[in-house]
Amino acid sequence: MLVGIGPGSVEHMTLRARAAIAEADVVIGYVTYIKLVADLVEGKRIVRKSMTEELDRAVQALEEAQAGHKVALISSGDAGVYGMAGPTYEVLFQAGWTPEHPVEVEVIPGASAINACAARVGAPLTHDFCSISLSDLLTPWPVIARRLDAAAAADFVVALYNPKSGRRTQQIVQAQRLFLRHRRPDTPVAIVKSAYRRRERIEFTTLAQMCEADIGMLSTVLIGNSNTTIQHGRMVTPRGYANKYDVADGGSTREGEKPGRSLSTGLSGWYQDLHERHAQGASAAALSQLHKLPLDYIEAVLAEPLQEELTLSAASQDE
Amino acid sequence: MLVGIGPGSVEHMTLRARAAIAEADVVIGYVTYIKLVADLVEGKRIVRKSMTEELDRAVQALEEAQAGHKVALISSGDAGVYGMAGPTYEVLFQAGWTPEHPVEVEVIPGASAINACAARVGAPLTHDFCSISLSDLLTPWPVIARRLDAAAAADFVVALYNPKSGRRTQQIVQAQRLFLRHRRPDTPVAIVKSAYRRRERIEFTTLAQMCEADIGMLSTVLIGNSNTTIQHGRMVTPRGYANKYDVADGGSTREGEKPGRSLSTGLSGWYQDLHERHAQGASAAALSQLHKLPLDYIEAVLAEPLQEELTLSAASQDE
Repeated sequence: MLVGIGPGSVEHMTLRARAAIAEADVVIGYVTYIKLVADLVEGKRIVRKSMTEELDRAVQALEEAQAGHKVALISSGDAGVYGMAGPTYEVLFQAGWTPEHPVEVEVIPGASAINACAARVGAPLTHDFCSISLSDLLTPWPVIARRLDAAAAADFVVALYNPKSGRRTQQIVQAQRLFLRHRRPDTPVAIVKSAYRRRERIEFTTLAQMCEADIGMLSTVLIGNSNTTIQHGRMVTPRGYANKYDVADGGSTREGEKPGRSLSTGLSGWYQDLHERHAQGASAAALSQLHKLPLDYIEAVLAEPLQEELTLSAASQDE
Repeated sequence: MLVGIGPGSVEHMTLRARAAIAEADVVIGYVTYIKLVADLVEGKRIVRKSMTEELDRAVQALEEAQAGHKVALISSGDAGVYGMAGPTYEVLFQAGWTPEHPVEVEVIPGASAINACAARVGAPLTHDFCSISLSDLLTPWPVIARRLDAAAAADFVVALYNPKSGRRTQQIVQAQRLFLRHRRPDTPVAIVKSAYRRRERIEFTTLAQMCEADIGMLSTVLIGNSNTTIQHGRMVTPRGYANKYDVADGGSTREGEKPGRSLSTGLSGWYQDLHERHAQGASAAALSQLHKLPLDYIEAVLAEPLQEELTLSAASQDE
């Protein structure tokens, strides 16, 4: 049982996560996570591992399960997000495991650090977001850098996991540098350490000042998108309502927009607009620049006749 | 209380989510989510809303709270991920709310659809991932398209929320088109409908065949990265161990790599390599192409002397 224990407070564990630990004969995990569930593991055989022994934990879990013991292999947050689920499946497959094997495998989802930290600061994740780990222990730096640059350019809200450690101090500086290529220096940033735990600490800052903040191994860094704001101590990313609904007017729809139907700049509206501009003389290259979309994509869209179903759906679309 | 109820099974709710609903006088939510917690809301005043009435739900929640009632405003998954947290804070601020106001606000995190669906198919999210909504009801299509293209290019695992509806059928086709610019047609894809609910359905397919699959309003689409595989009915994204640890050899470190220290192509190693290649005659432009990183970023890195702490940390770094 690959158990995501959530942020580390008993209240924020799921019933299934608690039940899985209660059912287990053996509980294996990084020593800090074992402490977080100390009350639940009393009387059980406990195997405490260090941070870099992830494969060891997975191998031992398999051995114990093969010996007939029920094993809870615990991760903070969600086991599938930078947790034990991936490494364990890799070990299982390498050992020749298949679903027909006597050892059963269950992944138990939990709220990841991104969800827990977001809940503590307001509603920063409302819209599309990315999760990027700054740990280059296992991933080449160029891969990480390309992801940071892409996420910043496409205006995602971004959560940085493993942002900094005693020795790994420069990756966060590089991340800031890449973000500043696309984002305003005053972009809101929240740094949350130990969400829902005794030593919880929340700091609001900006992209420009991010590197001066207190960031450590237990921190998650949340970088807002271009619409995110911090007001009254709450970091909030709008869902796009300001494009369509006048929140000040009690939610009445803006002129030209229809509730329940795609925004006029939704796919159908955008298709029509693109074809019209092109018909009026705008080149594919100019349109590619205007929308910051690849030229070949724009050309492919222009080459398609406006499909009947697209125009029909513009007229009658609703969710 | 902005409650994330998780995927919709009682077992996978957190203790706090259940307690919040139990404490509430009024429970407000989209009719389908209310049904998912039917047993918990017996005897309470229930306000069922339709899908597009998000602002209404938030406004009514505020009115009820101002009247002295405890309100549970429920979202499936996590309230902060395409849920009610963002719209509610927008309504609160518009109404002049501040944390000093008598109405208290609590966001209760839960496992989002991405975590629940991932748990049902294996371990697809192990590494960096993005979440993108294909709903253009509130977001202009070019914004969505830029995000899809960036996420695909930077090799994120991607979860598509709101992938398709009765009328919104073309956005998933456009998403596929953009992904195929960067990803192999045989990239693994999982489509999970109603994870942990009675009508749960899981389908594995590939990027090339994604649009033929049964995708609806209750589906989440998970697109793997370039290393993701589907083996024995489990979709697994490796954490990068194959770069460093020989999983087949029981986890011994590959030659030249050191356990607990940054990969030789981690930041310090990459810095050294870049400076060396440049010294040997490689231009910044060529290096920019080689690593697919922006020219100005490469130039900035080359302009910096290799910092003492970076080279020292290459020698002595550990987590």
